[in-house]
Amino acid sequence: MKSHLMLPGPTPVPERVLSAMSRPMINHRGEEFAGLFREVTAGLQYVFQTEEEPVVLPAAGTGGLEAAVVNTLSPGDRVLALVTGAFGERFAAIARAFGAQVEVLAAPAGRAVDLEALRAWLEQDLERPAAERFRAVLATHNETSTGVTNPVEAIAPMVSRHGALLLVDAVSSLGAIDLPFDRLGLDVVVTGSQKALMCPPGLAVLALSQRAWQAADTARAPRFYFDLRSYRKGAAKAQTPYTPALSLLYGLRESLAMIREEGLEEGFRRHALLGRMTRAGIQALGLDLLADARHASATVTAVVSPTSIDLKELRRHARVVSGVTLAGGQGDLADSIFRIGHLGHVGPADVLVALAAVGDALTAQGRAGAAGPDQAVAAAVRVLNEERGRKA
Amino acid sequence: MKSHLMLPGPTPVPERVLSAMSRPMINHRGEEFAGLFREVTAGLQYVFQTEEEPVVLPAAGTGGLEAAVVNTLSPGDRVLALVTGAFGERFAAIARAFGAQVEVLAAPAGRAVDLEALRAWLEQDLERPAAERFRAVLATHNETSTGVTNPVEAIAPMVSRHGALLLVDAVSSLGAIDLPFDRLGLDVVVTGSQKALMCPPGLAVLALSQRAWQAADTARAPRFYFDLRSYRKGAAKAQTPYTPALSLLYGLRESLAMIREEGLEEGFRRHALLGRMTRAGIQALGLDLLADARHASATVTAVVSPTSIDLKELRRHARVVSGVTLAGGQGDLADSIFRIGHLGHVGPADVLVALAAVGDALTAQGRAGAAGPDQAVAAAVRVLNEERGRKA
Repeated sequence: MKSHLMLPGPTPVPERVLSAMSRPMINHRGEEFAGLFREVTAGLQYVFQTEEEPVVLPAAGTGGLEAAVVNTLSPGDRVLALVTGAFGERFAAIARAFGAQVEVLAAPAGRAVDLEALRAWLEQDLERPAAERFRAVLATHNETSTGVTNPVEAIAPMVSRHGALLLVDAVSSLGAIDLPFDRLGLDVVVTGSQKALMCPPGLAVLALSQRAWQAADTARAPRFYFDLRSYRKGAAKAQTPYTPALSLLYGLRESLAMIREEGLEEGFRRHALLGRMTRAGIQALGLDLLADARHASATVTAVVSPTSIDLKELRRHARVVSGVTLAGGQGDLADSIFRIGHLGHVGPADVLVALAAVGDALTAQGRAGAAGPDQAVAAAVRVLNEERGRKA
Repeated sequence: MKSHLMLPGPTPVPERVLSAMSRPMINHRGEEFAGLFREVTAGLQYVFQTEEEPVVLPAAGTGGLEAAVVNTLSPGDRVLALVTGAFGERFAAIARAFGAQVEVLAAPAGRAVDLEALRAWLEQDLERPAAERFRAVLATHNETSTGVTNPVEAIAPMVSRHGALLLVDAVSSLGAIDLPFDRLGLDVVVTGSQKALMCPPGLAVLALSQRAWQAADTARAPRFYFDLRSYRKGAAKAQTPYTPALSLLYGLRESLAMIREEGLEEGFRRHALLGRMTRAGIQALGLDLLADARHASATVTAVVSPTSIDLKELRRHARVVSGVTLAGGQGDLADSIFRIGHLGHVGPADVLVALAAVGDALTAQGRAGAAGPDQAVAAAVRVLNEERGRKA
């Protein structure tokens, strides 16, 4: 059956990207590679909205988070982790693994970072001697586990006033939700190839500010493979310190070209629309959204599964009957939510298919009297038509 | 022009593997992925010759070496590094980066590990109290930078008698040169996807002995992404802790099938033949081999460039005129050698093309009176015919 992958990653890879990946291997120390390296770098500068040169390395996104930590921190450094879900916890765990003293400002599942609490923590921290203050703040831009987008545009100026480095996990947002690296004065932003960048998994990508690069020169966390100074040195010759994942870079070059063709702003609008359509359809089905409406993500929607529904069966039905793959919940949320990814190479029609599949799966479990798939689709189409009205 | 990539990695990727990589993304927490995971694991067990389940993770080979180090060592551990070239040095540098006290038994470029010296070091070390002895020995099976294959089959029993863990870099040998993991009692063996495994770069693969897994439970080197305990836990459910590099795994499944079809033993014989053909052709051209003849590699040949020859121009000529990409030397050897890779999806005809290209490039620099490409090819063909005679 035709498959519709509606995960928050890996996301569907466009044919153009899959085809690009079938190019033969080349010498990664030769001129042809230097051209590829430069094209990919320029494309990433566009997506990160930065003059800095992003670093690409073979790793999952988690490897990118580790690179952010080990290049900026030293054992014993105090760090403030803004935790809004499983990925915020992971970022904190990485910092702990490398010897940082991590303090956690946590939000309940579905809520964003509490800005007033953050302001208070940072202000209180400034009363300490400079050497004992938070060295870094770890933030998750888009918390994939709950479908919440944290307001980094509000967090960044607070952290900047404090003086700590701001490290941002943008794995499930970069390219889909606006996060202007230079304008916000971010220090490290991490993403992965398999989300809005529309490539297969296997590449971690990081941008570092000049301050972050300076931190890399003095940080004492042990590191080798993730020592970004080696990548910076290689980049001066348009090379990488270790063998680059060529096929994935061929794919990334192509997907970055597609992002340029659509235009970054247009991509942000598309993802925002997909988020609104998804939420409207889900609510039409009488289901609750996990995320606070003010911070609902444009790339992934977490849906609270009614207690009367067999969640596993719902996902199985969607997959087997409609060909739609939905994501489950992670950790504590495994038995209470499912998630719909709507990022990367995804359009309005894909959201309609996903909503129809969810509605059909609910109907199959005999939710008598409740709205069916047609109402979910109709609600999403209304959102789509409103958007078209605005554009016209 | 038709391109002949004669590097010691990345190696040419077969069409079958490139095609396999164009499959669409799937849910990495679903049943289809579990099937892929199990097939790849079984194929790797065949190539590693082990009952253990190898671990695959998104990273360059260097990431795999780091995983070997951080999962077995603690800061302060004494380690003996057997260094026969640039990759041995890298392995030692990684151990140092994570706080090990590294002692180096080095061999001159082109020579293998001195077994008598190793025996003496290990015996002397046994006079220390048990807690202060070498915790691990780091060895390079095939030193890619010099074209030397170290006799791991002789090193392993010595290390075993001593009691240290034996960590082996087999990035440019596994699958091409016999290295039976279980039979030799190795503790960690690391390889990469882009060498004899005939895949694009981007995957590191490791096998660990039960002793090495026990070490992982007590080692205190800081680690997160490379903490192999997370991968072992995931493997119990045929999953990975972080998003796997799906496309590369599709490719690896296919290339592992090809290795089975050829048969591991036949692959070893083919690579040994390619090495003999290459060396015969190079010697017919009157060029010197860097490697000690007793330890010449079956996968990569390092050729000493005559001082009368412009080495850069030789490589450029081979590439531009014959379409043959040769590798340069690394580090101190950058100006004195070039290297011919003959591993992975490479056959006798490819070696003939490479030798003709080298001979032609030499002739173009006016080596009057010296043997030309025809003699190099003839010498290699004689080796090929001898092999055919043996088989018939």
